[in-house]
Amino acid sequence: MDTHQPAPPLTHAERLDRLAALAVRVGLNLAPGQELVMTAPVEALPLARRITEQAYKAGASLVTCLLGDDQMALARYRHAPDEAFDVAPAWLFDGMAEAFRRGAARLAIVGDNPSLLAAEDPAKVARANRARSVAYRPALELITATAINWTLVASATPAWATTVFPDLPEEAALARLWDAIFAASRADAADPAAAWAEHNARLMAKRRMLNDRRYAALRFRGPGTDLKVGLAEGHAWMGGLSTAKNGITGNPNIPTEEVFTTPHRAVTEGVVAATKPLSYQGTLIQDIRVRFEAGRITEAHASTGQAVLERMIGTDEGARMLGEVALVPNSNPISRSGLLFYNTLFDENAASHIALGQAYSKCFVDQNLDKAALEAAGANASLIHVDWMIGSAETDVDGIDAAGQAEPLMRAGEWVSRG
Amino acid sequence: MDTHQPAPPLTHAERLDRLAALAVRVGLNLAPGQELVMTAPVEALPLARRITEQAYKAGASLVTCLLGDDQMALARYRHAPDEAFDVAPAWLFDGMAEAFRRGAARLAIVGDNPSLLAAEDPAKVARANRARSVAYRPALELITATAINWTLVASATPAWATTVFPDLPEEAALARLWDAIFAASRADAADPAAAWAEHNARLMAKRRMLNDRRYAALRFRGPGTDLKVGLAEGHAWMGGLSTAKNGITGNPNIPTEEVFTTPHRAVTEGVVAATKPLSYQGTLIQDIRVRFEAGRITEAHASTGQAVLERMIGTDEGARMLGEVALVPNSNPISRSGLLFYNTLFDENAASHIALGQAYSKCFVDQNLDKAALEAAGANASLIHVDWMIGSAETDVDGIDAAGQAEPLMRAGEWVSRG
Repeated sequence: MDTHQPAPPLTHAERLDRLAALAVRVGLNLAPGQELVMTAPVEALPLARRITEQAYKAGASLVTCLLGDDQMALARYRHAPDEAFDVAPAWLFDGMAEAFRRGAARLAIVGDNPSLLAAEDPAKVARANRARSVAYRPALELITATAINWTLVASATPAWATTVFPDLPEEAALARLWDAIFAASRADAADPAAAWAEHNARLMAKRRMLNDRRYAALRFRGPGTDLKVGLAEGHAWMGGLSTAKNGITGNPNIPTEEVFTTPHRAVTEGVVAATKPLSYQGTLIQDIRVRFEAGRITEAHASTGQAVLERMIGTDEGARMLGEVALVPNSNPISRSGLLFYNTLFDENAASHIALGQAYSKCFVDQNLDKAALEAAGANASLIHVDWMIGSAETDVDGIDAAGQAEPLMRAGEWVSRG
Repeated sequence: MDTHQPAPPLTHAERLDRLAALAVRVGLNLAPGQELVMTAPVEALPLARRITEQAYKAGASLVTCLLGDDQMALARYRHAPDEAFDVAPAWLFDGMAEAFRRGAARLAIVGDNPSLLAAEDPAKVARANRARSVAYRPALELITATAINWTLVASATPAWATTVFPDLPEEAALARLWDAIFAASRADAADPAAAWAEHNARLMAKRRMLNDRRYAALRFRGPGTDLKVGLAEGHAWMGGLSTAKNGITGNPNIPTEEVFTTPHRAVTEGVVAATKPLSYQGTLIQDIRVRFEAGRITEAHASTGQAVLERMIGTDEGARMLGEVALVPNSNPISRSGLLFYNTLFDENAASHIALGQAYSKCFVDQNLDKAALEAAGANASLIHVDWMIGSAETDVDGIDAAGQAEPLMRAGEWVSRG
């Protein structure tokens, strides 16, 4: 047998199995006997089935998959009475929160149509999103506090694929998007688990460097951007592997390229221009330009989706302040693909970014801060958490210490070597 | 315009829309602003989407559809650790019960593969079913007490269709099963709603006659059957339209041909032979023969599925006693189709039947009896409620009054005319 022969290319089914195994073993690191609550678009059924199989092989006691359907979601906007848009399935979200409290892990397959609700009444979209956010909050708080191990993984779907590849017929677009997902997720590596171990080690080195520096603020400069982002007191940088409060260490995002931490909600100052469109719950918001004063957005513009943007930041007081800042080198594989994915899981990993809304309480040296302590440290609170991209090959980032001294962290979108 | 021209045959899409409208308008009689919790096999997505649309058109505030997948269910049996089979999604079922308490209606699309679990370990099947029954009990109690309006409706699915029509290729089997579903559900009638109004009036006449008679017991005789079924004290006959405690009147089953009431759990005596196979949670149980003494099953045999039958009646003490008795004339449209549907919603409506397990608390003249009063009246309690068919063209049924006097109710499977 000639071991130097190249391995035959993987079939689609084999790649799905690898991605499913990665999601369960590397993403969740599912514990034997653990329950799993999965959500997925119904078009992602083939991947959801494989993840279910991998979860049981890893010892899951029960996998419950909640399949969502775009046509049913649209039927509501087309036919439901006006009063309907303030209602959300609190009974279901409370149930999910209860499952998490009882120890279940959480996996979401993302693959949403980026423009599903683009033609619907923005007022109804905003009311429905708000009702949903309020109802989902108890469950989301367990996720953002990393009470349990959870992960996101992607499935190509027809509407998403034809958005990313608008010039291709559906089948070809699906194949191309799957290629991009498998590559970005490192499911194509000769040994995917080993590739993830290496990748996690690289992210950990950056986290350690940033945690050692204990910057007071970051400064982003680029076309249309000159933004100082204050960091929360006692903040810690996270990224790659994450240890949940249930003791399980996994990768909450597949793929992931970011290191991130919690800004101080009252310190951000300056102007910032988004470097990629933002797909927010079915609406594409393009060319976002925002001014922050004392941490709050005081001006917000977009070339499309302005009404949705304004409603988003009007969700509550915390929706116009920052809950996350993340650094991503411009040269990473997702960025190098040159694709705009219209999906946060991918696009946020192509560029440095900020998020409006809820902060991650685990991005602190002391991970057991209560609400009052988190607020005192500068952590933001909101019903929303929306990432948007502000980094590019033209972005410089400085770290600023407590004395106001700046040192270069990234130049032209790339890390400055710093140990 | 020549109004005498026959209407063109309905397309499949038109028939689906009619069935969906029937489910929402006649089955649920959904109230404006009401939430709807729907469950469906994922293969029933086309009908589920149409029901969702009809529900919103009827004023639903929110439709939540929980799609089930046979392959995920099987993956558990193939790959999960042994301990898994005592776990059920209590968080989800508790959530459903909470939705019902908050006023949601309930719709289930049935279309299960009758033999899904036939090859799996009966001990695991029984443990999983028991865990599921225990977890589902709070929600089921709200259903059996008719706290809310609920309905069952059917969708053809490939595995079900090829079970009913084993000699046909899948596509032809699906078309034939859809024909049978539409016909049995009266969705093919010129005016389906009017056809249901007429049908409900006929069932109401039988209910009135039986309620006037106030029999103490029924006696079934036929090949292999000589069974006296005592009726609960203060029992009432139900069937067709049902008014839920939330005040909404609908048809809980589409189709339905039965009138039914609550037996006294301690009085049934004799032997009975099932006249159709019973499909119980994925296993087909054939040729059931059972002996009752003082209300309890003391002997139970089946030519196939005996182990599952024994485990079923071993679920709890109430699982070997009766919770329902129903009278169905043999000449009804479902029976005349000559099909064995391997599905209780259809097969129970082809023949008189009994059910093991939980009684319907609403089958009493006084519909507000508490648990103690229900027990004193003879109503059975159990985690299960499983219907099986004991009527045929060879079945005679007598009504027996409190003095022991018998009078004929059905002869050779048909109603004896009695006003």
